[in-house]
Amino acid sequence: MTTNEKIAQLRERMKKDHLDAYYVNTADPHQSEYISDYYKERAWLTGFSGSAGYALVTMKEALLWADGRYFIQAEKQITGSEFRLMKMDTPGYPDLISWLQDNLTPGSKLGMCDYMVSQAFYEKLSAALSPCKIHLVADGSLIGDFWQDRPALPKGRLFLHELQFTGKTAAQKIAELRGKMKADRVEAQLLAGLDDIAWLYNYRGNDVEDNPVALAFALITMKEAKLFIDPDKVGPEVKKNLEENGIEVLDYEQVNSAVHELREESIALNKQRINRRLFRTLPEKIRVVDQRDYPALMKACLSEVELKNQMKAYVRDSAVITRFLFWVKREVSKGSHITEWDTVEKLHALRLPLENFIQESFSTIAAYGPNAAMMHYAPSPENSAELKARGFFLCDCGSQFYDGTTDVTRTIALGPLTDEEIHDFTLTLKSHISLARVIFLEGMTGHYIDIIAREPLWREYMDYKCGTGHGVGYVLGVHEGPQRISKAGVGAAVLHEGMVVTNEPGVYKEGKHGIRLENDCVVSFAGERDGDRFLRLETCTLVPLDRSAIDVTLLSDEELEWLNSYHARVEKELLPLMSSEEEQNELKAACAPLKRCAS
Amino acid sequence: MTTNEKIAQLRERMKKDHLDAYYVNTADPHQSEYISDYYKERAWLTGFSGSAGYALVTMKEALLWADGRYFIQAEKQITGSEFRLMKMDTPGYPDLISWLQDNLTPGSKLGMCDYMVSQAFYEKLSAALSPCKIHLVADGSLIGDFWQDRPALPKGRLFLHELQFTGKTAAQKIAELRGKMKADRVEAQLLAGLDDIAWLYNYRGNDVEDNPVALAFALITMKEAKLFIDPDKVGPEVKKNLEENGIEVLDYEQVNSAVHELREESIALNKQRINRRLFRTLPEKIRVVDQRDYPALMKACLSEVELKNQMKAYVRDSAVITRFLFWVKREVSKGSHITEWDTVEKLHALRLPLENFIQESFSTIAAYGPNAAMMHYAPSPENSAELKARGFFLCDCGSQFYDGTTDVTRTIALGPLTDEEIHDFTLTLKSHISLARVIFLEGMTGHYIDIIAREPLWREYMDYKCGTGHGVGYVLGVHEGPQRISKAGVGAAVLHEGMVVTNEPGVYKEGKHGIRLENDCVVSFAGERDGDRFLRLETCTLVPLDRSAIDVTLLSDEELEWLNSYHARVEKELLPLMSSEEEQNELKAACAPLKRCAS
Repeated sequence: MTTNEKIAQLRERMKKDHLDAYYVNTADPHQSEYISDYYKERAWLTGFSGSAGYALVTMKEALLWADGRYFIQAEKQITGSEFRLMKMDTPGYPDLISWLQDNLTPGSKLGMCDYMVSQAFYEKLSAALSPCKIHLVADGSLIGDFWQDRPALPKGRLFLHELQFTGKTAAQKIAELRGKMKADRVEAQLLAGLDDIAWLYNYRGNDVEDNPVALAFALITMKEAKLFIDPDKVGPEVKKNLEENGIEVLDYEQVNSAVHELREESIALNKQRINRRLFRTLPEKIRVVDQRDYPALMKACLSEVELKNQMKAYVRDSAVITRFLFWVKREVSKGSHITEWDTVEKLHALRLPLENFIQESFSTIAAYGPNAAMMHYAPSPENSAELKARGFFLCDCGSQFYDGTTDVTRTIALGPLTDEEIHDFTLTLKSHISLARVIFLEGMTGHYIDIIAREPLWREYMDYKCGTGHGVGYVLGVHEGPQRISKAGVGAAVLHEGMVVTNEPGVYKEGKHGIRLENDCVVSFAGERDGDRFLRLETCTLVPLDRSAIDVTLLSDEELEWLNSYHARVEKELLPLMSSEEEQNELKAACAPLKRCAS
Repeated sequence: MTTNEKIAQLRERMKKDHLDAYYVNTADPHQSEYISDYYKERAWLTGFSGSAGYALVTMKEALLWADGRYFIQAEKQITGSEFRLMKMDTPGYPDLISWLQDNLTPGSKLGMCDYMVSQAFYEKLSAALSPCKIHLVADGSLIGDFWQDRPALPKGRLFLHELQFTGKTAAQKIAELRGKMKADRVEAQLLAGLDDIAWLYNYRGNDVEDNPVALAFALITMKEAKLFIDPDKVGPEVKKNLEENGIEVLDYEQVNSAVHELREESIALNKQRINRRLFRTLPEKIRVVDQRDYPALMKACLSEVELKNQMKAYVRDSAVITRFLFWVKREVSKGSHITEWDTVEKLHALRLPLENFIQESFSTIAAYGPNAAMMHYAPSPENSAELKARGFFLCDCGSQFYDGTTDVTRTIALGPLTDEEIHDFTLTLKSHISLARVIFLEGMTGHYIDIIAREPLWREYMDYKCGTGHGVGYVLGVHEGPQRISKAGVGAAVLHEGMVVTNEPGVYKEGKHGIRLENDCVVSFAGERDGDRFLRLETCTLVPLDRSAIDVTLLSDEELEWLNSYHARVEKELLPLMSSEEEQNELKAACAPLKRCAS
């Protein structure tokens, strides 16, 4: 079916249900960021494969909202279809609610799938549209009615996350959770977040590409802890372990009746995570405490055992990425004809033998030249540019290990650079170093410190259309909150010691180049005075930053000092992990101190 | 009555009403920051005279919460009474809600005055305490029952704010307001903010010290515009002007019935500003749109006419402050015995003859040495230190002119300084310059840019316990939102062109010194690229920064350049306004370029 044929089919179904508009989002019943293929209704309908965005179809219009990371890609992928791109947060493009208010007539009906939207979204939309007499009809999915070659629901089996990696048993974590519930006077906690549940119950799964989670709900009261999951996914060993930790395993679908039959007086849940259908099943009289789920914050602050493991994983992955980048430079300078896809395969091959390696933590972005301006470009065997001995190559990649999750980006020069490329690389480096050096008062959010990274670019009126950094889960999602470093203030979380965030400013120029430098950092204690505690972002990733792309005259003394001391640390930690003398020499050269020319 | 006698009286009244606790805040029925003496219940009860804070009295305890600006002062003023200081935002000191949850038993009754608390506060408290079965009793004021020498309600008359100063008639402003209401589909706007109403209706008043406002409510529908005010305050000329602009003048108390009898289907109001008693009178079926009041944002962005006027006011006041500071330095170096209070009187005398001068915009803070560590210290004739020829003198002052409002702080050396004083002054200057130089993307809040000022201090683990800057009204409150520059994120407003904010970082060391450098700034266009617009804070205050207190080796090249170019501008603008050759020479010396020593 072409995109336009799909739109036509959807309109037929809308007519049957007397709907004037239909909303299709990027979600699953858990409001996961990464979703199983089964739930990718928006991607299937629109042809746009990005990881975020939503569509609206009326009898006359077909609109796709995408964010700044995807403007270029989305425009390409919807070309030739009826879909029109609506650029999020861009003047001239109304957001969904404004568009609906201005374009639907009173009495209109707006349809959507009730298990694909969160209760919070449903309430927000409802409040905004009811003054305009626009009615929401949230029911089963219309797309499901005519998506014939829909992928099946995943069936991957759970595996236990061993005590050596977690540091705590599930029973211990549940007890801690109950302590928090008690302090807040709530009697139940309903969880829909796949990562929260996997962390709390110490298992991992295989339902989502790159994210070791499984489709499940959890319900914890003062006496019971339940897991709702497809029973085929729970082997005997895992089941035994869960039961030993006081966890009852029930069918995925049973969550609705379990919630409906709650006898507790109050329940904590996050309306952003709980879907509209499940929320509707709550007993009428129960007091709902709408808040961030307890495990979201609990798991975000890594324990000592987890941090120790994670640090080993950083070094292991840094070494392999460093070796990989040396290989790329070497091959290109030798004149080998290698493509972006070849580099993806090479990196995968280098990672496979690594200790504790599970899988990549997301599809490797390997982008040559202008391709890197598309922030989430990923090559494929069919669509892959050849690397040339000039300009930039950007690689954004990461691993899932049993003992940690990584996410690293380097942009390297494959040959001569233009002045503009060198200037933009150096500005990106200044941004990165600013954030790497920042000291901030305990209690501040990642939103609050975001400008530290952007300001060196803003001084030249340049901005990157994405966050500066995101949280990273521990053997979980590579994008995982609540922490993030972002100019978006809504829902910004306080940065606590032990949280992992990335530091990844960039410069993106369509048709020219894309530059991003990304390290994983851990929020750490910096110092204190008069009772005030201060924190910093401790840089953990150890991969050289390409000296050949830096205009040293643009760096302040403090920035140059940071860079040289970072490289000294990289050399010291990675030298034993290089696999040949050639690599050792390459590392030494890449980490040599950079000096100012005498003026 | 002593403070303890007042507490005893309050407890008697609480017993009568079967109240277990009574809450007394710093407010009036409009939630004004600066309040008429009549409403200063908290100050009268506790003896603490600061401009913010709240008290709680139970049968056993008497607690006073104050913020960081007032820790030192509050501690002093409650000494000898039963009141105990609760330091806001300080570990070890629970906030009001936590304290109530932990200390009141189920079934307890908490009393408060219903026209002194906002509806938002009432709802928040109610939601937090109902799970603990603590009941709120919001009724008339208990304090009023035994406050015998209570000041009378103010009776100052209104005056018109002329078109040459406002640039727009009240009728024009009301039409603009209705345009916004229409776009948002709301049919009425209820205003309690004294500044919002004065701005909208183009009058000024005399009910509050330093703030030219009058106690009033306003109700605007698509057809009517009402002003509820003590009729004695409205002279015939003002009344005629109001009526010509379509504004009906009604008795202050009539607001309750007018609100109760509304026939409109929807009303916009700000629950943070509307008191509990007034909110309760709303018709049951009306749809309440709880949001920032329209005039709050409308008046915050100065029009071209207002900006032009305001700029003249800045120069006029800067010149007089500069001359005043020269006088202070001169007198002290001559060995004259002058006190802090003498300087307050001198400054007032210098300002009186200024064009368009109405009054000071707040009580002048003139603090010598350790007194300046108390952020809101103000001397009085009885309590005033003598200035010595060493250390720092801090002066924070401002004017209300018919054509603008100012707020300026300078810290100057009266003689030799310690290394620590020079170091702290230079750090404060670095903070100030960082913010003065920042370039930021349009759409960001003052919360988001706050760290730019704090970071140079945080790098040495020092923090100031107050905001970095506040909005300033136009011939209105010297503290006026919604804009501010603050590490507190709640309610942070986006910075728009034409908004005035102060830039006032500082270092405060109890028993040693207090340093603050404050300029008024206007949010201005900085530049644009690829559709992104960038803003900056244009420094408007023009008073020399004391060169003799600066350690130039701590300044970066960019900082030094900013300082010298600022001083060049100060000299150029102020030279014609100096009143003697001596002052001209002092200005030239104060503005001479600062150079690095050859190394």
